[in-house]
Amino acid sequence: MGRKIAAIIGGGVIGGGWAARFILSGWQVRLYDPDPASRETVLATCERARQSYPALYDVMLPPEGEMSFHSDPAEAVRDAEWIQESVPERLSLKHSVYAEIQKHCPDDAIIASSTSGFKPSDLQAGTRRPGQLIVAHPYNPVYLLPVVELVPSAANSAQFSERAADILRRAGMYPALLRAEIDAHIGDRLLEAVWREALWLLHDDTATTEEIDTIITHGFGLRWAQMGLFETYRIAGGKAGMTHFIEQFGPCLKFPWTRLMDTPELDSALAAKIGRQSDRQSGRHSIDELERIRDANLVTMLRGLKQRRWGAGQHLLDVETQLNEPTTEFTAPMITIRRIIPVDWIDYNGHVNEARYLEIFSLATDAFLAAVGCDQSYVASGKSYFTLETHIRHRAEAYAGDAVLTETLCLSAMGRKLHLMHILRNSAGTELASGEHLLLHIDLKRRKSSTPDKELEAKLSHAAARHSRDMLPAWAQPILGFSS
Amino acid sequence: MGRKIAAIIGGGVIGGGWAARFILSGWQVRLYDPDPASRETVLATCERARQSYPALYDVMLPPEGEMSFHSDPAEAVRDAEWIQESVPERLSLKHSVYAEIQKHCPDDAIIASSTSGFKPSDLQAGTRRPGQLIVAHPYNPVYLLPVVELVPSAANSAQFSERAADILRRAGMYPALLRAEIDAHIGDRLLEAVWREALWLLHDDTATTEEIDTIITHGFGLRWAQMGLFETYRIAGGKAGMTHFIEQFGPCLKFPWTRLMDTPELDSALAAKIGRQSDRQSGRHSIDELERIRDANLVTMLRGLKQRRWGAGQHLLDVETQLNEPTTEFTAPMITIRRIIPVDWIDYNGHVNEARYLEIFSLATDAFLAAVGCDQSYVASGKSYFTLETHIRHRAEAYAGDAVLTETLCLSAMGRKLHLMHILRNSAGTELASGEHLLLHIDLKRRKSSTPDKELEAKLSHAAARHSRDMLPAWAQPILGFSS
Repeated sequence: MGRKIAAIIGGGVIGGGWAARFILSGWQVRLYDPDPASRETVLATCERARQSYPALYDVMLPPEGEMSFHSDPAEAVRDAEWIQESVPERLSLKHSVYAEIQKHCPDDAIIASSTSGFKPSDLQAGTRRPGQLIVAHPYNPVYLLPVVELVPSAANSAQFSERAADILRRAGMYPALLRAEIDAHIGDRLLEAVWREALWLLHDDTATTEEIDTIITHGFGLRWAQMGLFETYRIAGGKAGMTHFIEQFGPCLKFPWTRLMDTPELDSALAAKIGRQSDRQSGRHSIDELERIRDANLVTMLRGLKQRRWGAGQHLLDVETQLNEPTTEFTAPMITIRRIIPVDWIDYNGHVNEARYLEIFSLATDAFLAAVGCDQSYVASGKSYFTLETHIRHRAEAYAGDAVLTETLCLSAMGRKLHLMHILRNSAGTELASGEHLLLHIDLKRRKSSTPDKELEAKLSHAAARHSRDMLPAWAQPILGFSS
Repeated sequence: MGRKIAAIIGGGVIGGGWAARFILSGWQVRLYDPDPASRETVLATCERARQSYPALYDVMLPPEGEMSFHSDPAEAVRDAEWIQESVPERLSLKHSVYAEIQKHCPDDAIIASSTSGFKPSDLQAGTRRPGQLIVAHPYNPVYLLPVVELVPSAANSAQFSERAADILRRAGMYPALLRAEIDAHIGDRLLEAVWREALWLLHDDTATTEEIDTIITHGFGLRWAQMGLFETYRIAGGKAGMTHFIEQFGPCLKFPWTRLMDTPELDSALAAKIGRQSDRQSGRHSIDELERIRDANLVTMLRGLKQRRWGAGQHLLDVETQLNEPTTEFTAPMITIRRIIPVDWIDYNGHVNEARYLEIFSLATDAFLAAVGCDQSYVASGKSYFTLETHIRHRAEAYAGDAVLTETLCLSAMGRKLHLMHILRNSAGTELASGEHLLLHIDLKRRKSSTPDKELEAKLSHAAARHSRDMLPAWAQPILGFSS
């Protein structure tokens, strides 16, 4: 295995999202859709993903995989390791697609369905090799939201499911391996329940689409981006505990609050009403604009949660650990940071805000320090470096989506004093800025300067001996010095 | 009116959250709860709110209001402008509370109920002045989530509802004025629907509390923090439009996917199962820790959305516009920024990350420039300043929750060249850091340096003439200069 070839069967919004996630994870993607117009959708989706997905991470992704479009499904699946089916939700159509796929694909390929409604056993019924087929239901946008419901049936071996989960993890996803198959899995059952209730509210003119959306986005939606239903109510329950809270809460659920026995007749009058209200709410933006706004919002919130080391943000940190090369190579200068400029770094002048230059240089300092042994465990032992003084020179502008790198030189390291210099370049080689930094080694408990450990000191001396200001561009010569 | 006195009746989690929001908005708060233990809860809630709510804003809040605790409800409500009732959800209890309140409160006070279930007409029935009572249902934590469902009945005048909405807005909230009263209003109807479905999943062992929560937090919860149900599906519908999408979607809703006719018997066995699963999921954190984690997450995401000018973040910007003094006074030095250090600014060394110093100095530069006429409309006309060079000196550490200010001096302004200096202090007056900046006036279209408008140039010259380096501490003398 390990061919890293994915066949994407069906090139709609979901198939396009899968294609984007796989190519940006370094997989080759072979796309099949009988409709030639799907090509445009898929390419547009990949372009949006390139603007957003890499910006989730503070390390570089592997080189992008290649994508090809095929008019023959046999060609698309022939040597695929992963085959993702995202065709319309009609069981007979899906069965005919699987028959065609299984005629041509390797026996050890994983065929995964994006179905939001069908159970894997429904899909497997009557297929040639049922054990090869599993449900992998993602959430739109597939290239940003990490969760994917991985639903096996009794026909799938545990090893097969684990192999599928492992591939999804390597594509940066968070596979939730379900313990039982059920129509619509977990998430869409919850969403359907909300839909039914929301349709009644619209039908009865109790609320408009915009009013409902605002109550979600300005209220419990914010809660749910970071803690789910149960963790949120665990807090509401307080010190008495969750069991006690649920027992108290029980009677409330019997209230005749919801009209869930059926849905209102979803006739064309109700559909048109929803359409009108939605136009009023969101019509000032095109669908493409809304997609870009959504993606930038998601990247911004996910990066915030990453900084908080919580929820989906913790997951991104876990992915980064996989992605990050274990060691920064010692070179002169050292390449300390390679990354993509995320959208939340842009200011009203349309370029990277000045504060983000110092953020990059701060990360470059961290990467240099980690490489010489002042890493997380060194900091955990109560020692670190604090910056005393910083000097930044700007040479050229940087924009969202730019690939940039930092080159780091250790100009001097004498006892507790450390003098570093970073040069920021973009992928065209243009010098964007320099950062010069005076740092002091600190005893974190006393918050006072102290001498670094011997091993760290030796590595810093070695770096300082091999790095020199001659390696800097003429415009970036240092100007700072420690007062003695 | 305009007494800015709020009586909080009931000091639980919700009452405490209301108390926190009102004192942090500069109101006097008079709290009544028959249980003396509630005092501790309310004080702890206010303390958490002080650590988080002010950090939502990049401007200072008004001075905090005073809080007093009362054992006699008459004393609490006597001269209140706003009376918030958050007692347990029993109609007879609420009616007796209103009778007591209305015996003693001013006729023009607004009595608002936090009820999540009852309609305002249920609450008003049999009261002395029904038109004085309205539902204002918030979301926990009340001091961070902006939305509040404001539900009038036919007994409330439109002027009364508008006055209530206006007061809530002044407390930084987003009142959603509902068009019709209905049991459980809007948000809790949606939440109840999710609860019922989730209880079935738990009851049948289809999923655990943790699995359900992860699918929410790593999937649609992230979507709902920034776009609601309808705006999200508008995107899924694509260019064919919302009406078409809903018509297509209709048949899916008829699927027998949800078992919503009733709830599973919520007996002690099911409650205990939920308790056990919740302990496994979240038991490593105390409730207090979870509350602090939740608050820091919410502040971080809300600040991200503010930067994106979207959803609840746009609302915060609107609140800031209300809060912000219209002009920065011209003084020598000028006070350009007053703010609280938010939690997302802290790094692994336990203090404000170095990049955030430049973020503050960048905002201080913006505030200075706006004060001399290089404001949003000047930038919109295609002109701005770009930073060429920056020098930062660190003197002392800053921590989350610290109140800080910047003092700004214009050292020189000659044609397109501008030389600024900022000193950062905390509220104890300790000098934390200096920021020295060389800037160039830029033609944003050509991305080249250019001469500022006459009026701006005159104001800058005036500032440079009145500001001098003698006003800087000895340690913060400038070191940068323009090459000629």
